Amino acid sequence: MDSKPNNDRFLRALRREPVDCTPVWLMRQAGRYLPEYRATRQRAGSFLAMAKNPEIACEVTLQPLQRFDIDAAILFSDILTIPDAMGLGLYFVEGEGPKFERPVRSAEDIARLAVPDMESELRYVMDAVRLIRRELQDKVPLIGFSGSPWTIACYMVEGRGGSDFGRIKAMALNDPASLHRLLGVVTDAVIAYLSAQRAAGAQALQVFDTWGGVLSPAMYREFSLRYLRRIASELQRGEGADRTPLILFGKGNGPYLSELADSGAEALGVDWTTTLHGACLRTQGKVALQGNLDPATLYASPDTIRREVRSALDSYAKGNNGSRDGHVFNLGHGMAPDMDPEHVRVLVDEVHAASRERRLG
Amino acid sequence: MDSKPNNDRFLRALRREPVDCTPVWLMRQAGRYLPEYRATRQRAGSFLAMAKNPEIACEVTLQPLQRFDIDAAILFSDILTIPDAMGLGLYFVEGEGPKFERPVRSAEDIARLAVPDMESELRYVMDAVRLIRRELQDKVPLIGFSGSPWTIACYMVEGRGGSDFGRIKAMALNDPASLHRLLGVVTDAVIAYLSAQRAAGAQALQVFDTWGGVLSPAMYREFSLRYLRRIASELQRGEGADRTPLILFGKGNGPYLSELADSGAEALGVDWTTTLHGACLRTQGKVALQGNLDPATLYASPDTIRREVRSALDSYAKGNNGSRDGHVFNLGHGMAPDMDPEHVRVLVDEVHAASRERRLG
Repeated sequence: MDSKPNNDRFLRALRREPVDCTPVWLMRQAGRYLPEYRATRQRAGSFLAMAKNPEIACEVTLQPLQRFDIDAAILFSDILTIPDAMGLGLYFVEGEGPKFERPVRSAEDIARLAVPDMESELRYVMDAVRLIRRELQDKVPLIGFSGSPWTIACYMVEGRGGSDFGRIKAMALNDPASLHRLLGVVTDAVIAYLSAQRAAGAQALQVFDTWGGVLSPAMYREFSLRYLRRIASELQRGEGADRTPLILFGKGNGPYLSELADSGAEALGVDWTTTLHGACLRTQGKVALQGNLDPATLYASPDTIRREVRSALDSYAKGNNGSRDGHVFNLGHGMAPDMDPEHVRVLVDEVHAASRERRLG
Repeated sequence: MDSKPNNDRFLRALRREPVDCTPVWLMRQAGRYLPEYRATRQRAGSFLAMAKNPEIACEVTLQPLQRFDIDAAILFSDILTIPDAMGLGLYFVEGEGPKFERPVRSAEDIARLAVPDMESELRYVMDAVRLIRRELQDKVPLIGFSGSPWTIACYMVEGRGGSDFGRIKAMALNDPASLHRLLGVVTDAVIAYLSAQRAAGAQALQVFDTWGGVLSPAMYREFSLRYLRRIASELQRGEGADRTPLILFGKGNGPYLSELADSGAEALGVDWTTTLHGACLRTQGKVALQGNLDPATLYASPDTIRREVRSALDSYAKGNNGSRDGHVFNLGHGMAPDMDPEHVRVLVDEVHAASRERRLG
């Protein structure tokens, strides 16, 4: 499990070490835009059936690697496995995203929550990690992940995503102590979950703070950033070359990048509403940066995609004193089902070609 | 039509003149959270039937004034009346927001677009403005409004809101000249529309840039800010005390406030992801500021609402060298249908009471 991947560009970039070209992977790279994914899903029946079956999760995780020259695999799973294991009853309605049968609505609901056992209640995730590592044969590193405490809590309290977050914000304002209790137990679970994924073989870990950006600055610091910091500081992940890097991705985290850079995480994922140049200036070389092409760029023509890739690569270098190290190329958010796989190939190949050429000078 | 409203706090604050207390109105203050609005809507049949009938639009515009001590009325209408008048066929699906029957999909579609005639195709809007002014009897000023060119174009190209904006972003990337043609004709229409509302009696004008925040900084400057600037500079709105103030509201406009402050607009509307303190520092007293309580605060308890109101008032004063002038209190976005009218009363009364008390010493 400790063997070094043959392609370690991704891990080297997260450590801000020199690489031959900029590594790239894409959020939601294993997904419905791939016909082979849709075929597997049809066979499995549903998204959740896929995620809960380690063989299928492994199969789907590896699909984009068979097509594209990407530098990392990411576990096929969901950000809501933890509350599902806590008994909230995760389900999906086609076109509406995840929902919970039993959302958390009261102090009593919160008091009943406990950190799930990772090798029983969430064993399917760890089995998937182990199986993927075996099947990957060290071709590229495997990323494990979790939702952020705030983002998970949003779904737990609202019962669904994409709302105006009225319930959880009312709790934050009227009864912050209850919300802190909820975030506390979720954070304990996230730390245990990421530790277990690491023990099972994950070589990098990412936290998705999808909904941090819906908060006011004061509420972001109190209810999201605080718990991201706790994860970065308490998650035991080794030292030196053996250290498992932690990436904190957050939609709308632009205003908080300098604070996040002091969290102890090795890398920050940035969305497209901040330039990489600006993100470099705010983080001052303390962390690696991952991002940040607008996913909608994949709807543009191949020539336009190549131009936008080069522009993002150069924006990073401009902010990083001309150096291209410490950059992992990615989108600023996940891919959509109606995107063209051939455009993904154009993007991935251009990241490698243009960043290699620019390094050679 | 040129008579001065008896309560001119709102207009004085937009001119950064001293006022006895901070004026307040709320985006979507005439809306489904009011039982009397729901009754009128049931009678009229639909949102669009209400907006297109001047008597009903007037009735609904005045409803919140009969309940709350608010300092401005805002025309009851929609941000998509312009493309509807251009022939795109606006319609609403319950729970899904506005859609167009004939979205703009090609250069030919764009070439066919023309600025509608304001006193025929959009006469129902101007008639509503005239009727509301008459019924208001100068109690408070009336705000006219429009969507921003970028926001209107998003709906015109996507055919609906809330998407990932893939079509319009692909157009921006692949064929920017076509998108600029579209934005050009829409901007001409917005300028003519706001001028006509002013001529009909609107005493302040607001542009809603709901979707500017979904853009990368480079695309925001090219496709949204540029056209907001054109509106601010070309819209003839008088001089001195007779000048009709223009407010540019934008969700996610925090990173661009210093540029927007140089646009020529009298005031900027700010969402809750930026503090008023920070917004003051970025705008340096060049403009008045409107905002910015998180609408979800209205789900909190009355005591919490009062605390958050005071905190926003003080955030503004802290950034504005201790002065509370130049601030119009508002939410950072529109109200939701499930909000409690009694909580609105608490908010409005606290804005007046706390800001008056703080001004006295």
